Amino acid sequence: MTRGLVSLVGAGPGDPGLFTLRGRQRLRKADVVVYDRLVDPRLLDWAPARARRVYVGKACGAHAMTQDEINCLLIRHAQAGRRVVRLKGGDPFVFGRGGEEALALAEAGVRHEVVPGVSSAVAAPAAAGIPVTHRGVASSFTVVTGHGGSGRAPVDWARHARGADTLVILMGLAALPGIARELIAGGRAPATPVALVRAGTTTDQVVLTGTLADIAARAAAARLEPPVLILVGEVVRLREQLGVRRRSARRAALARARAGAGRLVGAAAAPRGHGSEKED
Amino acid sequence: MTRGLVSLVGAGPGDPGLFTLRGRQRLRKADVVVYDRLVDPRLLDWAPARARRVYVGKACGAHAMTQDEINCLLIRHAQAGRRVVRLKGGDPFVFGRGGEEALALAEAGVRHEVVPGVSSAVAAPAAAGIPVTHRGVASSFTVVTGHGGSGRAPVDWARHARGADTLVILMGLAALPGIARELIAGGRAPATPVALVRAGTTTDQVVLTGTLADIAARAAAARLEPPVLILVGEVVRLREQLGVRRRSARRAALARARAGAGRLVGAAAAPRGHGSEKED
Repeated sequence: MTRGLVSLVGAGPGDPGLFTLRGRQRLRKADVVVYDRLVDPRLLDWAPARARRVYVGKACGAHAMTQDEINCLLIRHAQAGRRVVRLKGGDPFVFGRGGEEALALAEAGVRHEVVPGVSSAVAAPAAAGIPVTHRGVASSFTVVTGHGGSGRAPVDWARHARGADTLVILMGLAALPGIARELIAGGRAPATPVALVRAGTTTDQVVLTGTLADIAARAAAARLEPPVLILVGEVVRLREQLGVRRRSARRAALARARAGAGRLVGAAAAPRGHGSEKED
Repeated sequence: MTRGLVSLVGAGPGDPGLFTLRGRQRLRKADVVVYDRLVDPRLLDWAPARARRVYVGKACGAHAMTQDEINCLLIRHAQAGRRVVRLKGGDPFVFGRGGEEALALAEAGVRHEVVPGVSSAVAAPAAAGIPVTHRGVASSFTVVTGHGGSGRAPVDWARHARGADTLVILMGLAALPGIARELIAGGRAPATPVALVRAGTTTDQVVLTGTLADIAARAAAARLEPPVLILVGEVVRLREQLGVRRRSARRAALARARAGAGRLVGAAAAPRGHGSEKED
């Protein structure tokens, strides 16, 4: 019997092309795949047909399984000598509770590893044409969750308002009106540009821009639904700069690009190449 | 003749297994690869033998090529109809000057795209056994460069001292004594744990821990050399927690894991599997 191993694997921001080589290698050898709600189902196709697939999805407030139950599941399968892939959206250590799972596995003496992933905190802005850092515009960025969560202290937005140049707020859509208000109260100008990126890097991507003063109203009017990343700071204007140039250059190509994948920031759409990526 | 395309591709944090599927696909189709100093040369093996390989390495203060020259190079090759891969360490939009290159390409009307990568800002801490966020310990993290750079304003460390829970400082080794001093002056406790991660995720990884009060002296004594990531915050203690449990559980396995790859946080080393990853 092989020795069990739990791989805590980052599934990336949504687009399967942004999965890592090691992540796929681990999936291909998996006996058990334990996955979350935000994981693209196409990733699961890389696991052997015989592999067990266990959904432990975490919808807000409606967990299919508690964290303790998930920890026990991972430990039990590994102790039975299985290769377990714990597939988590984005990166396992960026609000993925990967640290808690790693601690539980360490306490149980279970062999495990972390395979980092592309975090949506950086990739979703990029897909919307916005770099989180840019020379002369932003030399720091903070990543923070928009809700304190059950039993957690509320987020101190005044502290973040005075902190890094760019704010990347994950899971903040429901709290957006309060966040915008508190960031302004904390010292950010009401005219600070804001972008909302829904389902960033996927073909369902939607981008909405505004300012701290009006973004909550705009989001409500557009009836945006989670998952939405909130991006606050002057870097958001770079999207317009790129966009204006792009429009003046090749209007038709842009329309195609917009209709299709949203990750492009360039003058026209490039092939996504999913087919060849899946096969190679 | 094919239409030119420039792909701004994140090479990931160092370990070739953390490269993305799309990044590799773009390399395999490349006519020209333009790469930086921190890119693992093994990645270049995926480009066709006939592809031109152009090193534009940026050692601190000794650029092989200026940013303008790099921009011109990318534009010229794309306008000649070539598929250009601009390979940058980590993620192209996290202090990679990818935004500047994207703007230059947009201005020139050149077709381009961004392929995000795994950022060392998150992956190097993970490889050292430290999650940048952890429930009850850190619910936010800031990523910032340690040096203002030529012509740039010095970093306001007092602002970051009072900002996010975890600080991830890139390119800060030379300025470490001043950074530590200013973070303490800005309100962080001298006993705040700090980890230095050199060449994170690679087989050359070195991790050094201490506190804000003593880390600069420790780094000097160890004669650490760049690239080093500085991690400041209570999450650094999680490494010890994992480490202590790991030591008591399997001392021999740990010694092996430490001698080899540093990315494991678990009870024993797992196969890195580079061979199979390269071939599949």
